[in-house]
Amino acid sequence: MDHGFGSWATIHHLRNADRVAYVDGLAGVQTTYAQLEERTNRLADALRAKGVSHGERVALLCLNSPQMMEIYLAVAKLGAISVPVNFRLHPDEIAHVLSDSGASLLFVSTPFVDAATQALASGTSVRETIRVPALAEREAGEGGDYEPLVSSGASERVVADVGHDDVCVIMYTSGTTGRPKGAMLTHGNFFYNAINAMGFASGIGRTDVTISAAPLFHIGALGVHTLPFLFVGAGVVVIEAFTPDQWVEAAARHHVTQAFLVPAMWAAVAASPALETADLSSLRLAISGGAPCPLPVISAMKSHGVAFTEGFGMTETSPNAACLQPEDVVEHAGSVGRPVAFMDFRILDEMDQDVPVGHVGELCLRGPSVFVGYWDKPEATAEAIRDGWFHTGDMARVDEEGFYSLVDRKKDMIITGGENVYPIEVEQVLYGHPDVVEVAVIGVLDETWGETVAAVVVRAADSSLTADGLREWARERISHFKAPRRVAFVDELPRNATGKILKRELRITEGGGHTAVSR
Amino acid sequence: MDHGFGSWATIHHLRNADRVAYVDGLAGVQTTYAQLEERTNRLADALRAKGVSHGERVALLCLNSPQMMEIYLAVAKLGAISVPVNFRLHPDEIAHVLSDSGASLLFVSTPFVDAATQALASGTSVRETIRVPALAEREAGEGGDYEPLVSSGASERVVADVGHDDVCVIMYTSGTTGRPKGAMLTHGNFFYNAINAMGFASGIGRTDVTISAAPLFHIGALGVHTLPFLFVGAGVVVIEAFTPDQWVEAAARHHVTQAFLVPAMWAAVAASPALETADLSSLRLAISGGAPCPLPVISAMKSHGVAFTEGFGMTETSPNAACLQPEDVVEHAGSVGRPVAFMDFRILDEMDQDVPVGHVGELCLRGPSVFVGYWDKPEATAEAIRDGWFHTGDMARVDEEGFYSLVDRKKDMIITGGENVYPIEVEQVLYGHPDVVEVAVIGVLDETWGETVAAVVVRAADSSLTADGLREWARERISHFKAPRRVAFVDELPRNATGKILKRELRITEGGGHTAVSR
Repeated sequence: MDHGFGSWATIHHLRNADRVAYVDGLAGVQTTYAQLEERTNRLADALRAKGVSHGERVALLCLNSPQMMEIYLAVAKLGAISVPVNFRLHPDEIAHVLSDSGASLLFVSTPFVDAATQALASGTSVRETIRVPALAEREAGEGGDYEPLVSSGASERVVADVGHDDVCVIMYTSGTTGRPKGAMLTHGNFFYNAINAMGFASGIGRTDVTISAAPLFHIGALGVHTLPFLFVGAGVVVIEAFTPDQWVEAAARHHVTQAFLVPAMWAAVAASPALETADLSSLRLAISGGAPCPLPVISAMKSHGVAFTEGFGMTETSPNAACLQPEDVVEHAGSVGRPVAFMDFRILDEMDQDVPVGHVGELCLRGPSVFVGYWDKPEATAEAIRDGWFHTGDMARVDEEGFYSLVDRKKDMIITGGENVYPIEVEQVLYGHPDVVEVAVIGVLDETWGETVAAVVVRAADSSLTADGLREWARERISHFKAPRRVAFVDELPRNATGKILKRELRITEGGGHTAVSR
Repeated sequence: MDHGFGSWATIHHLRNADRVAYVDGLAGVQTTYAQLEERTNRLADALRAKGVSHGERVALLCLNSPQMMEIYLAVAKLGAISVPVNFRLHPDEIAHVLSDSGASLLFVSTPFVDAATQALASGTSVRETIRVPALAEREAGEGGDYEPLVSSGASERVVADVGHDDVCVIMYTSGTTGRPKGAMLTHGNFFYNAINAMGFASGIGRTDVTISAAPLFHIGALGVHTLPFLFVGAGVVVIEAFTPDQWVEAAARHHVTQAFLVPAMWAAVAASPALETADLSSLRLAISGGAPCPLPVISAMKSHGVAFTEGFGMTETSPNAACLQPEDVVEHAGSVGRPVAFMDFRILDEMDQDVPVGHVGELCLRGPSVFVGYWDKPEATAEAIRDGWFHTGDMARVDEEGFYSLVDRKKDMIITGGENVYPIEVEQVLYGHPDVVEVAVIGVLDETWGETVAAVVVRAADSSLTADGLREWARERISHFKAPRRVAFVDELPRNATGKILKRELRITEGGGHTAVSR
């Protein structure tokens, strides 16, 4: 038997046939491992009948759903490659992902059919779109194109030649070059990532139940919890869209034992009135990731008897790279923790030499869950992975006890509500406006979102461009979460002697003027 | 970083430096992962200075102790091979293991120095013996040859070229050919065995603590719990010699959460008066293995709030091969359970074809934790591993739900108190007695030991040989646990048409006569 993650359903089908693999949100429809194995075999067979073969890309523009997980698994069983697409992207950005990956099929949840149609209008390699029913449709017994497709396949076990080195997911991640790049993740990456996940707090066992409420197109929900839980044959409650009250209700109803969310979501849960009355006694571990979690949020969850950990990682590391364990989360607040078991950390200077303990350098990672490169971007891959070490672009230091802390982002990345935003991508769009002479995009602290996107702009001399006008311009061209929420107009941008913009000198005041609010 | 088990101390030294790796029995001396890493680096360096190199064999004739685990780890760090020796063996048998493996060094616990001297007198490849202090000596501050050796090495991290395919342990196991054979186990075998161990009940986390009371020269104590616990950075309480009262006391004192014992040991724990008064509230999982555990023993442990599982495996499978989960242990009593995650099972007929569900055939296993062959026995290896499948010699069937049951042992193996005894080995010794004309050795049911060894003997016509006399003869030549506890003299042995002895027709009555007590 291969050990690719498509086989994990097969493994637990044989060992734990009647155990529940998925619960469909509050509605509560359960899928056992036996059913999961049968459905993913049928889907894989149906995809094979459509010509999907080893190495072929299949895109997913999907709401969280059991169906989305089935697609990941069925594609993996064939040795093909899933390309999850962030449904918050602008249709032009979706088109880029589809074209760049060369996806041949597109699974699309009903609410995104229009966006998909716009994306496909520009011409892509997609030859067929398969509509996946949203929760409301499933509850009404409507299966979209999806259920007939599953039914059309044979239930026999699918056996493909799948090895640890085969790519199974290409996940797009923004970067300094503007356009998102596809990080290639292998079956071996997810295998070791699952093992690394077992080192968080008290581990994961087959009797555990997690809840996937963060979006499954991101590495967080997929890699921190969902796939590691499948790996051990545990249960996953899938939530279509996160709201704190529904999350609490679902966690209580399905006796969830562990859960991953980004800090903004944990803050919403901690503030939810539902938390006061719900029985969450089954919940023993909370994992936060994507950005540091505020201590008051951690304290609130701990007051409900939940151990709290913080994970650190990125798309390129599948993602579990470091962990701040429950006993360290307060004492070492602000640190990203210590490396997971099968991940090596180094901090290197610009000559790729190790810096001494306590000194700042670039955080570099190596291990069997580190990605193998960017899809169709050999130069970007060679730049990122040098001498076997993934150069993260994050500046960090390590202390005497082995705790790592990020001190700056080499790439100026902004994290807003769990989404990564690269300033250069936003700046390129804003520079497209005829009245924008100069612009710098930065992140500013925000109580709800962690950070929010802000633009500091030099207008043309005679321009009447307003903040609202520029925001509107951006929203028509890129994802809403990337468009600047705050805009400040200035006469000039601060620059250093060589003309480079000094972003750290930029500040945005509450009034929108120039100065104040550090990041 | 390599992923061999010598590196596991290094991994957790970096991640969990201050966590306790070992506790030395009741005395309670604790060794942190930082100390374990330093001590095993020193020992490895000292062994390297003695010329121990990659692939070299180092024998261990040791009582359970933290030192024994350090030796396993230090040898693994060098890419060398540990050869654990059952200290219950007769000196001639010990000599066979030392000679067959070609071990160059021998670590020997003080109580076994005499046995080692006798074993070495026949001439072996061992060039040096290193005395390891027993618990009483350690408590008196005496380190034997061991502590000075550790101190002589450097503390720097040992880096050797160790891969998953390298052999790290040769463990001797008896077989149908009489003399024990050395099963070669690799770093990869133990890596996957640890992952398979995580599928028992609720898994293993870094906050767990186990207790190694079964002997660490056997695969049970080493592979069911000790190495998997090291793999996740958890704690291990090491007990020098099992007694039920001390076991209960140590488990309570050190807040043990999971424990492995053989059925006879669980029976002794369940019957221990200490169990009534001790606080074992931390203990949530009991694992039994080596033979089926009587239901009253399981019930007794469950009445103390402990979940009970049964594991099935053998030396050649590192050993976790199947598991009877807590919810199945009563309903499917007598079954060995279902396969662990990364282990494939088949039941084959004599033509190596699959038999239908419910039919009996030979149990054959395949997976990344299955051994790679018998040391220096290519023919035995080729006989055991055919077409990639390890042919266990056990006859079994599987039911519709995927539960496997052993129905007979092809090899007539006897399991007494957790030790495997092969009748042919005992028979060869008994045939050596001048008055024995014919003999058949069988196992008979025994309340304490599960089975006990019995010999059915045809004496020479004029012989005055007694049962005691024959027992004495055997004990002088083989391990006491292999010598027959019960002896019956008969006029002839039942045979089939072709002259083969019908062992199943043999019965031993309480009076020692022929007939009664089935097995």
